[in-house]
Amino acid sequence: MKAVRYFGHKDVRIVHDLEKPTPTGDQVLVKIAGAGVCHSDLHIIDEGTIPPGNTFTLGHENAGYIEAVGPNVTGFNTGDAVLVYGPWGCGHCKPCLQSHENYCDHQAEQAYGGGLGLDGGMADYMLVPHSRLLVHIHDLDPVIAAPLTDAALTPYSAIKRSAHKLTPDEFVVVIGVGGLGHIAIQLLKATSGATIIACDVTPEKLEFAKSLGAAYAINSRDADAAEQIKKITGVKKAKVILDFVGATPTVTLGAQVVSLNGDQTIVGLGGANYPFTPGKVTFGVNMSMPYWGSKAELEEVIGLARQGKIHVEIEQFPMDQILEVYDRMRAGKLKGRAVLVP
Amino acid sequence: MKAVRYFGHKDVRIVHDLEKPTPTGDQVLVKIAGAGVCHSDLHIIDEGTIPPGNTFTLGHENAGYIEAVGPNVTGFNTGDAVLVYGPWGCGHCKPCLQSHENYCDHQAEQAYGGGLGLDGGMADYMLVPHSRLLVHIHDLDPVIAAPLTDAALTPYSAIKRSAHKLTPDEFVVVIGVGGLGHIAIQLLKATSGATIIACDVTPEKLEFAKSLGAAYAINSRDADAAEQIKKITGVKKAKVILDFVGATPTVTLGAQVVSLNGDQTIVGLGGANYPFTPGKVTFGVNMSMPYWGSKAELEEVIGLARQGKIHVEIEQFPMDQILEVYDRMRAGKLKGRAVLVP
Amino acid sequence: MKAVRYFGHKDVRIVHDLEKPTPTGDQVLVKIAGAGVCHSDLHIIDEGTIPPGNTFTLGHENAGYIEAVGPNVTGFNTGDAVLVYGPWGCGHCKPCLQSHENYCDHQAEQAYGGGLGLDGGMADYMLVPHSRLLVHIHDLDPVIAAPLTDAALTPYSAIKRSAHKLTPDEFVVVIGVGGLGHIAIQLLKATSGATIIACDVTPEKLEFAKSLGAAYAINSRDADAAEQIKKITGVKKAKVILDFVGATPTVTLGAQVVSLNGDQTIVGLGGANYPFTPGKVTFGVNMSMPYWGSKAELEEVIGLARQGKIHVEIEQFPMDQILEVYDRMRAGKLKGRAVLVP
Amino acid sequence: MKAVRYFGHKDVRIVHDLEKPTPTGDQVLVKIAGAGVCHSDLHIIDEGTIPPGNTFTLGHENAGYIEAVGPNVTGFNTGDAVLVYGPWGCGHCKPCLQSHENYCDHQAEQAYGGGLGLDGGMADYMLVPHSRLLVHIHDLDPVIAAPLTDAALTPYSAIKRSAHKLTPDEFVVVIGVGGLGHIAIQLLKATSGATIIACDVTPEKLEFAKSLGAAYAINSRDADAAEQIKKITGVKKAKVILDFVGATPTVTLGAQVVSLNGDQTIVGLGGANYPFTPGKVTFGVNMSMPYWGSKAELEEVIGLARQGKIHVEIEQFPMDQILEVYDRMRAGKLKGRAVLVP
Repeated sequence: MKAVRYFGHKDVRIVHDLEKPTPTGDQVLVKIAGAGVCHSDLHIIDEGTIPPGNTFTLGHENAGYIEAVGPNVTGFNTGDAVLVYGPWGCGHCKPCLQSHENYCDHQAEQAYGGGLGLDGGMADYMLVPHSRLLVHIHDLDPVIAAPLTDAALTPYSAIKRSAHKLTPDEFVVVIGVGGLGHIAIQLLKATSGATIIACDVTPEKLEFAKSLGAAYAINSRDADAAEQIKKITGVKKAKVILDFVGATPTVTLGAQVVSLNGDQTIVGLGGANYPFTPGKVTFGVNMSMPYWGSKAELEEVIGLARQGKIHVEIEQFPMDQILEVYDRMRAGKLKGRAVLVP
Repeated sequence: MKAVRYFGHKDVRIVHDLEKPTPTGDQVLVKIAGAGVCHSDLHIIDEGTIPPGNTFTLGHENAGYIEAVGPNVTGFNTGDAVLVYGPWGCGHCKPCLQSHENYCDHQAEQAYGGGLGLDGGMADYMLVPHSRLLVHIHDLDPVIAAPLTDAALTPYSAIKRSAHKLTPDEFVVVIGVGGLGHIAIQLLKATSGATIIACDVTPEKLEFAKSLGAAYAINSRDADAAEQIKKITGVKKAKVILDFVGATPTVTLGAQVVSLNGDQTIVGLGGANYPFTPGKVTFGVNMSMPYWGSKAELEEVIGLARQGKIHVEIEQFPMDQILEVYDRMRAGKLKGRAVLVP
Repeated sequence: MKAVRYFGHKDVRIVHDLEKPTPTGDQVLVKIAGAGVCHSDLHIIDEGTIPPGNTFTLGHENAGYIEAVGPNVTGFNTGDAVLVYGPWGCGHCKPCLQSHENYCDHQAEQAYGGGLGLDGGMADYMLVPHSRLLVHIHDLDPVIAAPLTDAALTPYSAIKRSAHKLTPDEFVVVIGVGGLGHIAIQLLKATSGATIIACDVTPEKLEFAKSLGAAYAINSRDADAAEQIKKITGVKKAKVILDFVGATPTVTLGAQVVSLNGDQTIVGLGGANYPFTPGKVTFGVNMSMPYWGSKAELEEVIGLARQGKIHVEIEQFPMDQILEVYDRMRAGKLKGRAVLVP
Repeated sequence: MKAVRYFGHKDVRIVHDLEKPTPTGDQVLVKIAGAGVCHSDLHIIDEGTIPPGNTFTLGHENAGYIEAVGPNVTGFNTGDAVLVYGPWGCGHCKPCLQSHENYCDHQAEQAYGGGLGLDGGMADYMLVPHSRLLVHIHDLDPVIAAPLTDAALTPYSAIKRSAHKLTPDEFVVVIGVGGLGHIAIQLLKATSGATIIACDVTPEKLEFAKSLGAAYAINSRDADAAEQIKKITGVKKAKVILDFVGATPTVTLGAQVVSLNGDQTIVGLGGANYPFTPGKVTFGVNMSMPYWGSKAELEEVIGLARQGKIHVEIEQFPMDQILEVYDRMRAGKLKGRAVLVP
């Protein structure tokens, strides 16, 4: 079978002669229908963050149809449409027990998921090591659904940390209306009554945010962006900040407008360095950098997609164009989420 | 000033010569703009549930503009548009401390709110005994806002009990699309991603429910109503039941379709009598009859109304027509929530 | 190997020639060190609640050492000391995903756990169908630990439903200081600051309750038991009721003393039949009958046992005496939890 | 009457001729029985953090007996034993509605509490501006109870942020076994089942921590302190860090040992400056600096004290020795919490 393989720093190649795997035990073989292309692939490829000597198939946003199941599999059958949950934990620690494999106790010790050190889904078939890592998508189209596993699950999980604070009398600031941020706005509109204030740096993005459900849109490059936000919120400020950029200026902006006892959640890994020190941190605020989401949350995301309450804009590409897709991604020239269709 | 006064069982009269009160201490005088007419008034009037010897002004859904404030009042000024929070607790017990005056420890010992034993808002002016019982409504029209204090707050608080269970992969059944139920559907749509299944007994109500956000509408008089619901939900059943009728048949229906570990919340006081016994109660289900809502929740309801996310249909009447309004209510001939406008 | 087998209504026999199973896939073979004997065994045996035609090994409170693991097992090794989690769900539905197999969506469709329709632990060896059903107990003695899987997990899970209400200014009433109730008192003392009021019907039980951490002990047969409790709590009443009897009189007592917006949790299946109807149910109270507990909660129970914060009194018996043990249980002559030691 | 007054930077004097106030409206006059002396007084006095021109009576940990009530006061009577809640909010914003006056929306705009810019309790009498700021202590001795308002409430509120994470299978690290930390250990023992690891820098403090309920005690100056803690916790690390020092080395230690998705709560204002940046912050961890606690939480603290589950070691001093007490505090020579007894 064909696959997009990582061979090391800046070395990605399409191979054509991989053997089609056979599932044993609780393993499942998925015929890939769609494999999302994610910016974090570029971290791996361009920065070589995976140690040398590891060769594997890329792709960690995967969906398709079950081709074959191992003899111990229950609950899944050949032909079922499924998503592959991304962060693969040990399956036995307390966080894993509760489906938070994204916070597995053993995260630091192990290769962590298909496409992230182990064989992923940019291939004709993907061998999923355990049926517990699959989620049924029922009548959803796997090509459309593939990016949900990361681009929707990650903001969903970030929002859920603050669910009890997102009451309809409060304000939430979404910084960055890109791949994850534009879904965050839809998720907030679909699951909370809070008033959404979006921030980005171009008029197009600000209009886009409004079309998705933001009540206000502020250019975060304006020198008085914080003042503009506080004029909207009044003295209470914004109870929740969701920062999909995570650069020092956006974290600084968030810190200026977050409520006492609010949440400032940094999802974007833009390299922010902010001083956690009295005077710079508002009393009671939880500052955090969450990571991905739980399998139970992925079920909830699928619930939204099946109801038509969220929409991920995608561009489809054949597998052969992967290197070109990465180039377009580096150049910022993709319009939606790129999905490889084998 | 003029007021609608309760003098005892089936004895309601309009009086014209009440003295306009003067606020002292932390009291506030509100010039009433709208006073909602509620079915529970009929319980008081027709059943005489308030002990004889009590004479008071009716009306427990009140909104208006501040006419005067007592010398100790802070945070409110003459001319402010306000809602009057309905259930008046002691103000000092633990539930009251957290704004849950609806569950005041001393509820059983005292007259419980304006229009419910103490002077209410069907009058030119209402003396509110403490500024803590007022909530700012800012730019909302008080005539429109008056019914929020009960007809919206009560379902909102019932929904909030189950907020963490109302995830987008779950189903919620709303039984009764009347005064409270039709708002409940809007509240669910505005604050949760759960799929809404509405139940009522006429095609008009079922269509109405769909227009407000219900994905499915089932006639609860159908002999197979429970089967129809389970066909929609599948084996997991409905995680939350909100019953705005509260008669034995609706509670029985709810009990048939509620998930293991779900919530069955009976808001309507339709006199249901259901056996709480093994075999009739699904494991893990919370069965409850909540009462009204907290002041903090009223702030949240106002947040939804100000964003235009909920709409209460109202009919306005002058104070002089109150007896006719009660008659129309008894006859089921009101189209929306009746609001007296002095 | 030897095992205690259920053959049908009132037909339990010890067999000697069962074949020792061999684990495949994700299965694990456990050499049983202790198998708790539970009252619910008597329901099965004496009432024939398991359909005829089912023959299986009894025992659903099981602990021991891993004898062999199937080829797909990870996280567990030969020689590890483990508990066997009792309620076996489908492993894939949303409740199972979060370790709440006790509320598996498919509970009604399937045999539900070893010793409850499938082969349990009253045997030399037990074949556990999936490693996800095991929990490490580290340095705990399996003989002591066996009853934790039910007699401690069940009250723990009931308490956890109310954890946020069990603040140190509140009161909790524990009705029934027997097998589960005496552990409930220890669990409450170890994990909450609430004041414990215990109810039972003999002076010995009431003294025992005090020795375990109850601040007050009331004879629930006293005609004025409710008044005695309200004298302790004052007007706020008891925020949480944990009823380990579940007979109509105890549920009635609980309903009289529970706070507005409190929890009345019926764990004991004593056949109570209480009318859920206005006037008999306090506003806002959650009435529920929970079932067993989650695997994550079992980890937490083990945490308490390892710290020495809970103690289950046990009596050990060899497997051959099982029929005598059941007879003593029927006669109420067991002093602690009976554990079979093969 | 006599009072300890702040006149400006380093200028504290005892005055003898203050007029005894008379309560009006909802005000209450408290005859002070005990006024705790707190380190934050030294911030005010030695650093002049309160703007010049403000003269007021010091003392923000106050308890006593009600001497007189204003005409609008309900729920409190002459002679009642009370604590004065410390952080005085506006009383009307959403946080204040729920008793979180410590996070009042208007905190930045106003003088914030008796002894903190307004007249406090180091005096014969204290005029409390509103009865809502009082909490009944019933049979507790006010001299003993005074420090609960800050020295116990602050750690209690910090712990409560993490209550759902403090399960009995998890570890909590308490850094600093001083005025607040030694109460934190008692609070954790009384309200959670988590295993407590205490850190401090002297053998006496470490022994003290163990005597109060810590299972382990580590010298945080040891070069391998983080390794010692991880050896105890294993790979899961500590779910919650409570840092009562808040210096850069303690925050750094906490960051090394906190679990994925845990809480690192900095209570001590030791001037820490820690880089909030990828690589230095563990995924999912909430880093926060909370402030004081809510009135509802103060009720809960009183519940613990009344049950004898927490004990604050105090030293009593007459009011005339206040300057000497401050000097002993500066020199670190106080053994327990100092309480002025007028």
